[in-house]
Amino acid sequence: MKAIAIDLGGTNIKAAVVDKEKGIIEQTSTPTNAELGKDLLLDRIAGTIEELAQREGAIGIGMGLPGMVSIDQTTVFHPPNLPGWEQVNAAEEISKRTGMPCRIENDANIAAIGSMHFGVGKKYDSFIMITLGTGVGGGIIINNKLFKGTRGMAGELGHVIIDYHGPLSNSVTRGTIEAYLGQRFLSRFASDMIIQYPGNDLYRKFNGNFDKLEPIDLTQEANRGNDLAIEILEKTGQRLGYAIINYMHILDIRKFVLSGGVSKAGKWLFEPAKEIVRKHVMPPFLDGFELVYEDLGNDSSLLGAAGLAFDSFS
Amino acid sequence: MKAIAIDLGGTNIKAAVVDKEKGIIEQTSTPTNAELGKDLLLDRIAGTIEELAQREGAIGIGMGLPGMVSIDQTTVFHPPNLPGWEQVNAAEEISKRTGMPCRIENDANIAAIGSMHFGVGKKYDSFIMITLGTGVGGGIIINNKLFKGTRGMAGELGHVIIDYHGPLSNSVTRGTIEAYLGQRFLSRFASDMIIQYPGNDLYRKFNGNFDKLEPIDLTQEANRGNDLAIEILEKTGQRLGYAIINYMHILDIRKFVLSGGVSKAGKWLFEPAKEIVRKHVMPPFLDGFELVYEDLGNDSSLLGAAGLAFDSFS
Repeated sequence: MKAIAIDLGGTNIKAAVVDKEKGIIEQTSTPTNAELGKDLLLDRIAGTIEELAQREGAIGIGMGLPGMVSIDQTTVFHPPNLPGWEQVNAAEEISKRTGMPCRIENDANIAAIGSMHFGVGKKYDSFIMITLGTGVGGGIIINNKLFKGTRGMAGELGHVIIDYHGPLSNSVTRGTIEAYLGQRFLSRFASDMIIQYPGNDLYRKFNGNFDKLEPIDLTQEANRGNDLAIEILEKTGQRLGYAIINYMHILDIRKFVLSGGVSKAGKWLFEPAKEIVRKHVMPPFLDGFELVYEDLGNDSSLLGAAGLAFDSFS
Repeated sequence: MKAIAIDLGGTNIKAAVVDKEKGIIEQTSTPTNAELGKDLLLDRIAGTIEELAQREGAIGIGMGLPGMVSIDQTTVFHPPNLPGWEQVNAAEEISKRTGMPCRIENDANIAAIGSMHFGVGKKYDSFIMITLGTGVGGGIIINNKLFKGTRGMAGELGHVIIDYHGPLSNSVTRGTIEAYLGQRFLSRFASDMIIQYPGNDLYRKFNGNFDKLEPIDLTQEANRGNDLAIEILEKTGQRLGYAIINYMHILDIRKFVLSGGVSKAGKWLFEPAKEIVRKHVMPPFLDGFELVYEDLGNDSSLLGAAGLAFDSFS
C-alpha cells in the first residue's frame, strides 16, 4: 500500500511516495515561498505531487503543517508562517487540484502518527508523543487512534502548567512546560546558570556571550563530564517529569515517546524525568510506565503524513 | 427502566431502586461496619438489596465506592476505609450473592455518570466533572461515555500539579490542585490569611482558633460582603482556573461541571476561575467554554450508581 506524504514547512514543501512496508520510496522538495500567497502555495503543493513519478496507485494524500486542525482533519486555523491562511480547508483545496483524497494534521500529531506506524510507537496501543523542538508539542494515541478531543485541539501538551508563577514563553500563561523545555527557553535558563560560573568550560566556550548557546552544547558538555551541564539538564528533566505526571493523572496513559532536537540530550534529560515520575506519581500508575526516545530522522514528518493517509483511506 | 444503586460509604451503605425517568423510587440504608470484615460487608450489601421491595424488573446493579477501579468496572484496588480490601472483584461477589449483574465505579466517576444521566451533564456530549469535597476528584465524559484511560485510572484530576514548589496535600507531590481546594487545605490557607487580620469578622468569629473553620464559613462571610473572605475565595478560584487550563489543553473538552461541598462557594469561586481561563487558555479553546454548578443533593451518588447500571446493562 502506498500514500502521498506532504510536509508543509516554513522553508520547504517536502513530498514523498511512502510504502507502508518499505517506507519512503521517492522524495522531492520545493521552496515554500509562502509570501506569494495562499493559492500559489496550494498550486505548488499540487505541483510537487505531480512530480512524483511513482504516485500511481497511492490511496490518498496526508499532509502535516503547523497550526490547529479541525476534528475532521480538513481545515487549518491560523498556521504560523503562512500569511493569509486564517482558516483554509486545505484538504479540499489539494483534492480539487490533484483528484486524490487528502487529510491534514498538525506537526506534533503527525509525529505521533509517524511513530505509531513506523517507529517505537508500533509496539504500544496507546502512548503520548512529546515533541521537544523550538516549541513543545504533543500527540495522544489511544487504542491506535489519534485522540483529538471535542474540537480537534487536544494534546496541546506544551501549554500545560507546572508552576503558575513560573517564567513566560510563547504561551499565554506562565510556567508551562514549554517555558522550560522549548529550545530558546532552555538556552535562556542555561545562560542564567552558566553566567554564575566564569571558570566553567561552557562559559569559556561562549566567552560570556550565550546568544548562540543551544541545547546540543549542553549535551556535548554533559557527555564530557561537565557537572554544570549535567545539572542544567537534570533540573530541566525534572520539570519534564512534573509535566508527565500531569499527563498521566489525567489520561492514564503510561507510555511516553520523546522526539525533537532537545530530546537528543537523552539520558541526561530522561533519567531525572523518570526519577521525578517514580517519586511523585500515584504509585498504581507506575505499573507499565515507560519513557523512550524516538528518532525517525529528517523524514519523520513525511512518514507521519503517510500514516495519516493510511489511517484515513485504507 | 429500573436499576439497583448502591453507595458504599465509610459510614453507611445506601441502596435504592432508581427509575431512569422518575429517579429514586425506593431507598434504604444500613451501617457499613467495615471492621467486621470483607465477607460480612459484601453479605450486608446483598442484604440491603434484598430489602428493596421494588427490585423486581431491575436490569442490574451499579455501585459507587472509594478507590481505584479496574477498566472493566469489576475490581477495586486499595479502597480507603475498607480494611482487608486490597484487591476485590466486588462486582462478581455481589452478583454471586444476588443473582444480578453488577458493575462498580469510584465516587468521582460516579458523580460524572450521575450528572450525565440526571443532572446538568445531560445537555453535554462531553464534559469534565470536578468534585470539590474533602479531596478533589474528577470524572471525564467523552461522547456520553466515561473515559477510563488504558488501565481504568484516568481522571485523577485532584492530583494535577499547578505549582511543583507548592504546598503538600494527601497527594504524593507538591502543589496539586487538591493542595489548594481540598477542604482541609483550603481551611488551612484561609487560617493563614485570617490570622493576619485580627480585626476581621472571620478572626473574631473563631477567636483566633481556626481548627473549626470550614469553607462554608468563607462563603457565608463573602455573602455578607467580607473582603477578606472574598479575597481568599478569589485566590482559590484562580488556582482552580489554572488546573482547568491544564485539563483543557490536554483533553480539548470545554464543559466543566463542579460539585461537592467547596463548590457551594458558587460565584466567589467560579468567577475568578473563569477569569483566569479567559485570560490564560489558548484563545481557540474559549469557544464553547462553560463552567457550571451541579447539585443533585444527598442522593447524587445513588443516581450515578444507577446510571452506571443503565450504561452497563441496557
